[in-house]
Amino acid sequence: MKTESEYIVTSRLDSDFYKFTMENNFFPEFKDVPVKYSFKNRTDPVNLADHIEEKDLRRELGHVLEIPVKKTELHYLRGTNEYQERMFPETYLENLEKQKLPAYDLAYKRTGPGKKKFTLDFSGPWSPTTHWEIHGLEIVNGLYYKSLMQKLSKFEKDAVFATGTLRLLEKINILKQYPDALISDFGTRRRFNKDWQEYCVLTAAEELGKQFLGTSNVELAMKHSLLPMGTAAHETDMVIAGMASNDHEIRGAHRKVLDLWWNKYGYGLSIALPDTFGSDTGITDMSYAYAHSWKGFRQDSGDPIIFGERVLDFYKKCGVNAKDKMIVFSDGLTVENIVKIFLHFKGRVRTTFGWGTNFTNDLGLKALSLVIKVSEVMGHGAVKLSDNIAKATGKPEDIEIYKRIFRYANTLNNVCVY
Amino acid sequence: MKTESEYIVTSRLDSDFYKFTMENNFFPEFKDVPVKYSFKNRTDPVNLADHIEEKDLRRELGHVLEIPVKKTELHYLRGTNEYQERMFPETYLENLEKQKLPAYDLAYKRTGPGKKKFTLDFSGPWSPTTHWEIHGLEIVNGLYYKSLMQKLSKFEKDAVFATGTLRLLEKINILKQYPDALISDFGTRRRFNKDWQEYCVLTAAEELGKQFLGTSNVELAMKHSLLPMGTAAHETDMVIAGMASNDHEIRGAHRKVLDLWWNKYGYGLSIALPDTFGSDTGITDMSYAYAHSWKGFRQDSGDPIIFGERVLDFYKKCGVNAKDKMIVFSDGLTVENIVKIFLHFKGRVRTTFGWGTNFTNDLGLKALSLVIKVSEVMGHGAVKLSDNIAKATGKPEDIEIYKRIFRYANTLNNVCVY
Repeated sequence: MKTESEYIVTSRLDSDFYKFTMENNFFPEFKDVPVKYSFKNRTDPVNLADHIEEKDLRRELGHVLEIPVKKTELHYLRGTNEYQERMFPETYLENLEKQKLPAYDLAYKRTGPGKKKFTLDFSGPWSPTTHWEIHGLEIVNGLYYKSLMQKLSKFEKDAVFATGTLRLLEKINILKQYPDALISDFGTRRRFNKDWQEYCVLTAAEELGKQFLGTSNVELAMKHSLLPMGTAAHETDMVIAGMASNDHEIRGAHRKVLDLWWNKYGYGLSIALPDTFGSDTGITDMSYAYAHSWKGFRQDSGDPIIFGERVLDFYKKCGVNAKDKMIVFSDGLTVENIVKIFLHFKGRVRTTFGWGTNFTNDLGLKALSLVIKVSEVMGHGAVKLSDNIAKATGKPEDIEIYKRIFRYANTLNNVCVY
Repeated sequence: MKTESEYIVTSRLDSDFYKFTMENNFFPEFKDVPVKYSFKNRTDPVNLADHIEEKDLRRELGHVLEIPVKKTELHYLRGTNEYQERMFPETYLENLEKQKLPAYDLAYKRTGPGKKKFTLDFSGPWSPTTHWEIHGLEIVNGLYYKSLMQKLSKFEKDAVFATGTLRLLEKINILKQYPDALISDFGTRRRFNKDWQEYCVLTAAEELGKQFLGTSNVELAMKHSLLPMGTAAHETDMVIAGMASNDHEIRGAHRKVLDLWWNKYGYGLSIALPDTFGSDTGITDMSYAYAHSWKGFRQDSGDPIIFGERVLDFYKKCGVNAKDKMIVFSDGLTVENIVKIFLHFKGRVRTTFGWGTNFTNDLGLKALSLVIKVSEVMGHGAVKLSDNIAKATGKPEDIEIYKRIFRYANTLNNVCVY
């Protein structure tokens, strides 16, 4: 019999903090909205079905269905007050304790002689289906790197970890030269594996001290008394827009989400994510009042410098002193672009950096760009545009509709200054 | 360099839950009352100074001063809602996070050629001095058993654990025959060591299921998602009485504590401990209203059957249906007297059992009866009488004063039916 610790996911809190802040935000009003999340591998030419056996994937996914949210984990969430007193109300926690994740829908299909691909979807009410995003990514990433490692000799494996260690050392030494460049771990979904993420997080916490703000991984935050970090992702915009019954409501979806969020959390978690349907409209969807009251923005696609300048313009027009505001950069960060972005905006706006793949999966093996995104809402196709059309998700015809509604015409597509 | 895990106490939550419920109860009103806690070994003829070296004791005690209350531990306490919503308010938790334990006062004294004894006292404001009780006991017990074990061969050590395992098995098998006899772990202060306590607690939780209610040890409760258990001890009565300026106030101390407690916690933690100055007065100090509203009593000295019968008489006089009430027995329990007490009161009043020394320190080595009790309050001697005058603490002249004030004349002294 296998023991629990041999599974990739062993705690429901081994997830991103924003899964809980988002679920709590739409709870209870939208908890039963039927949604579908779909897995997508954006990394060609890696064919995951060549590396991951169906029985292993089923075993890991199946185990997640068996994991209860433990009493102490509920204590931890109930006791979370760094952003707002009692941010998780009892009704939400009771729902979390009782909820059962919906079954996964996995299909391996032959695509040619000796060739196969898999599809992986999760359908059910928004709460709790939302939680599959992170657990699904942890599992697929985890099994993929496990399969790569199994093909290596012991010494080759040692060399992988030695590479990861030295790269981490080099990156941390660079970051130490910019002690005001504040870093957080956003690397749960793309990590090499859980132990390596923990090693990176503990090393950063030890070496960078107050320069390291915390981790998006709630289990690690709880285990090591670090700050759990995260706010919202695109899915809230996508689901609210997906529920809309006309263009006008679709156009208003992002504004509606801003209101929902502000009414639930106030200042503590008030970092807006404006790029779901393009930052052109997403930034200016903020009212004059919100420009003043919200803490800032998160940048997750397109060119970070152009984004930041646009935010500064917006603040200027609203008469806001941008030095009191913050931009959280979180899109494909390397130490080099962390430093560039930090220096570019130094003294003009506060910046922090949610460091992902390059933090927790930089050991010399190719990192994958995998996502699990909302694909359907109430049977309609869900859409994300983002500031980089290569990161868009949705059916082509739906994407066209959203581009028209949001007057999406930004020129950032695939352009990145680094 | 020694690593932290080699110390006996490595977490401020490696303590009894009641330390926190009591401190929160007297916080902030009485937090600065100057008190002194003193160590006492009630087990003749063991002379602890023959077993515990001064430098080891100083090293362990000194380490406790360095341990911070961690963020996650604060989350855990903040999130504790099993007894009452938000029972630990933010002002209390901030105090807990910032507090520094006062220095310990340890003196090894020569008492003859090659002979020595030690005294161990802790003086300071009530909060945080109160926390030394459990940490001091954990350390003295821990060092004593460590010294005994160091004298054994590897095989003799194995035999100690084998004995402990078999005794635990036998006791658990007996308890399983009485599935309504509900057990909790109250054995932190007298444990053989922390790992053994953890083994006993996990075994009981696994084997006894719902018959095992939880543990008084907050660190273990947190680590294993068990219910943290505990209410109040004698020290609150002793300190409130010690602050009194006349006999009338001393006589009213226990009633004052009942009011304080009820106003702070309501029903959730309403288990009264009536024996501080003798249960004769302690039980009837409960008003008619409290007899109805409180959950029940805890028995911690004297004859448990006589105590329980007296409680039942009291309830009858107050018109209370005792079947709705609970008595927590916690005085020197063995499985034999757990079963006797359980059967005696079955169907008449709910019983639960806070199992201590015989649970966590029954491996064939003699268990010690060590206490750390309030000895002074604002410079006056503090007094506990209890229902067994052999368990009384205080200066003889003060004990006589308290006996007069509380008309202490019970005949239970040193009488135990088992």
